Amino acid sequence: MPMLEAALENVRSHRDRHLEEYRALLMIPSVSTLPEHREDVLRTAQWLAGELGRLGMERVELFPTQGHPIVYAESLRAPGRPTMLVYGHYDVQPVDPIDEWVSDPFGAEIRGEYVYARGASDMKGQIFAQLKAIEALAAQGPLPFNIKYLIEGEEEIGSPNLPAFIDAHRELLSCDFVLNCDAGMHAPDVPSIVYALRGLAYFEVEVQGPAKDLHSGMFGGSIRNPIHVLCEVIAGMHDAQGRVTLPGFYDAVRELDADERAQLAQVPHSDDAWRALTGASGLYGEAGYTTVERVGARPTLEINGIIGGFTGQGAKTVLPARASAKISMRLVADQQPDAIEGQLRAYLEARMPDGVSWTLHEHSKGPGAIMDRRSPYMKAALGALKEVFGKEPIFKREGGSVPVVGMMQQRLGVDSIMLGFALPDDGIHGPNERQYLPNFFKGIEAYLRFMLAL
Amino acid sequence: MPMLEAALENVRSHRDRHLEEYRALLMIPSVSTLPEHREDVLRTAQWLAGELGRLGMERVELFPTQGHPIVYAESLRAPGRPTMLVYGHYDVQPVDPIDEWVSDPFGAEIRGEYVYARGASDMKGQIFAQLKAIEALAAQGPLPFNIKYLIEGEEEIGSPNLPAFIDAHRELLSCDFVLNCDAGMHAPDVPSIVYALRGLAYFEVEVQGPAKDLHSGMFGGSIRNPIHVLCEVIAGMHDAQGRVTLPGFYDAVRELDADERAQLAQVPHSDDAWRALTGASGLYGEAGYTTVERVGARPTLEINGIIGGFTGQGAKTVLPARASAKISMRLVADQQPDAIEGQLRAYLEARMPDGVSWTLHEHSKGPGAIMDRRSPYMKAALGALKEVFGKEPIFKREGGSVPVVGMMQQRLGVDSIMLGFALPDDGIHGPNERQYLPNFFKGIEAYLRFMLAL
Repeated sequence: MPMLEAALENVRSHRDRHLEEYRALLMIPSVSTLPEHREDVLRTAQWLAGELGRLGMERVELFPTQGHPIVYAESLRAPGRPTMLVYGHYDVQPVDPIDEWVSDPFGAEIRGEYVYARGASDMKGQIFAQLKAIEALAAQGPLPFNIKYLIEGEEEIGSPNLPAFIDAHRELLSCDFVLNCDAGMHAPDVPSIVYALRGLAYFEVEVQGPAKDLHSGMFGGSIRNPIHVLCEVIAGMHDAQGRVTLPGFYDAVRELDADERAQLAQVPHSDDAWRALTGASGLYGEAGYTTVERVGARPTLEINGIIGGFTGQGAKTVLPARASAKISMRLVADQQPDAIEGQLRAYLEARMPDGVSWTLHEHSKGPGAIMDRRSPYMKAALGALKEVFGKEPIFKREGGSVPVVGMMQQRLGVDSIMLGFALPDDGIHGPNERQYLPNFFKGIEAYLRFMLAL
Repeated sequence: MPMLEAALENVRSHRDRHLEEYRALLMIPSVSTLPEHREDVLRTAQWLAGELGRLGMERVELFPTQGHPIVYAESLRAPGRPTMLVYGHYDVQPVDPIDEWVSDPFGAEIRGEYVYARGASDMKGQIFAQLKAIEALAAQGPLPFNIKYLIEGEEEIGSPNLPAFIDAHRELLSCDFVLNCDAGMHAPDVPSIVYALRGLAYFEVEVQGPAKDLHSGMFGGSIRNPIHVLCEVIAGMHDAQGRVTLPGFYDAVRELDADERAQLAQVPHSDDAWRALTGASGLYGEAGYTTVERVGARPTLEINGIIGGFTGQGAKTVLPARASAKISMRLVADQQPDAIEGQLRAYLEARMPDGVSWTLHEHSKGPGAIMDRRSPYMKAALGALKEVFGKEPIFKREGGSVPVVGMMQQRLGVDSIMLGFALPDDGIHGPNERQYLPNFFKGIEAYLRFMLAL
């Protein structure tokens, strides 16, 4: 495989330059949520567009949106060969709490085997490694596959403009599969592929009792306290086995088969370590499932926030007018968010007593996603990881949600290969975010091997 | 009864002057909680001390405390006759929301049959009416009873220095009963006497789950969510009959007898009006009791506030580290706050599951109080009200707490007669507080008749 050897040689001989270019990208503070960084976000998009042009893409375009632009590029010179759509985002989270950073979040300081910067791991490191793999391949001649890029600038604010963009450009974005680089590995010595993500259905329920806050001495005992009602309703949402009681909640859940359970049992995990990591005094969850299964393969319902009445310092004898809770369900295939909303409403209708009124407000809805573990693309990814890391990769399910994966399944009808080299302790979204540099360099090689194996 | 007639004549001929003096008292902004009004509070104490001296008290003294001074006075020239201790407070609540006041809160503007000012009803109007009754009696000769005054300046901030003062001056304050003027009537045409007050035991419970907030996608379903635990614990605090489930909660409750229930049924009350007043869509409470009984004669448990997790705008996928609730119990005779705390702890011990820890913090504890409806002092009060208002007064229980009443019972061993002329719609603690002036003038006469009937 002379092309592979030559490309690997190319990659290995340019590590210093790759690192300096990566650091230059990290130094642009592309914080999408802060208006004062608007120009920086645009500059990052332009930087990527320039890079993509330099790599020989036939078309490079910044598509404006109501927010930050979407970077699109394509190279379609391999007729009959697969077309991959590379997904990434070039925006980053805010840096607060700034006081806890050891070095400038946009200084990209190298300490030990890490580079420290906001966005280093999430996800400039990943998308940049993929670009360097293309650079090494393009240096050998025409790409032996077709490639498109969709790199958005609003992932950290919930991709508000992405669904409409995809819908308006389905032809442009058509592909055989998505290479989603917004991904990571289980540990530096445990190569892994996430093949399933949980969806999310997030609501807020508000219970209204009296018209305004009342004195709990004068009125207490004679009318419904909305906090009591809310607590009773929430308490009823789980049974004694830790199962969610919304009517029909498990009907659409794709159950684990023996094969998949055996694979998940391979995921390195220790309940003791999990307890230490969370600081909880004990673990808990749905009866009949392991911790790995509970967080990856089973749907859950969590109250993310609750508030009602007087919550300041000290004591106030108030019988409150209202109380509210944020309720989110993590969904697995094939639960549909709209059906879940219907179940939640049915549950609330049945449980809310006289003497209060209530409303349910939707915050977000996205389905879970599960990918075929036996597809040729998955095999190519597994092979690349095994070559680079010298170990058989494991299959993982992820408890969190990557909405774009479900979005691509729903709107373009394609699966995503989650291939990235972030690590769980990179500190994404927190202070001192970092990228483990050995993984960055191995990542370039893995992307390279993956694409050549298609 | 020439003394009565002469005193009434005196009172009636000085109404204009009484009103002007009352307004002068209202114009001093004695807001005890605000440091910038410290001098005003002191000025009010001195104003009262001057007035008490002018009325012929043999001893008038300002006792300093760590906060605002206590005004003490006494006239003990009737050996063998009863001694009453008049309780009142000269401090007032802050005036916010100031924008909602129609006139200056310390301008004491008269509109229609009301004077509008902070403190007009709570309680400068009441204590001043009592002083004017003494003035009219003192003009006729030596007082035919013994009287002491304890007027504090910290009632609106919870009387932090009063218990220690009482304990240190038990001899000075010894009396046959307390005339507590911090009281009101059911309606202008419904003279009433409150003979029972609920106590209060107020706590805060905090449930700690993981050591810090976790991502609900990564960890949701595998550890206890402290909001769930708190809601389950709270939901279990009432049974389906609306009864409190703390073990032994009702053991010490003095049950209503047929006679008392019949008396309470006389209290003008309409469930429809109560519903309209609260704005609740329906009433609710302990099975087997009327609304009047539920709020006056039965103990309750209310959650006054709850908070946990993310409570800002929008959605955040957090599995929170902790959740807490403010829990208060209204107590009736003969429930003891310490016993109630023990019951709450026992309940929490039994209900809290593995995987969380919890703490219970005390905010305040005060017993309920119930007074003898057949004592000679009560008879004197009933008679005075009947004469002045032309109607048989009704007996009422009050759902709120007046801690000083329990304090006097516990520390001085005496009952209080709650005699005052505030009205439920006076707007105390809110904007546009007012005093109904016909009640102020009738109040002077009622105090006068009451004291002469001892």
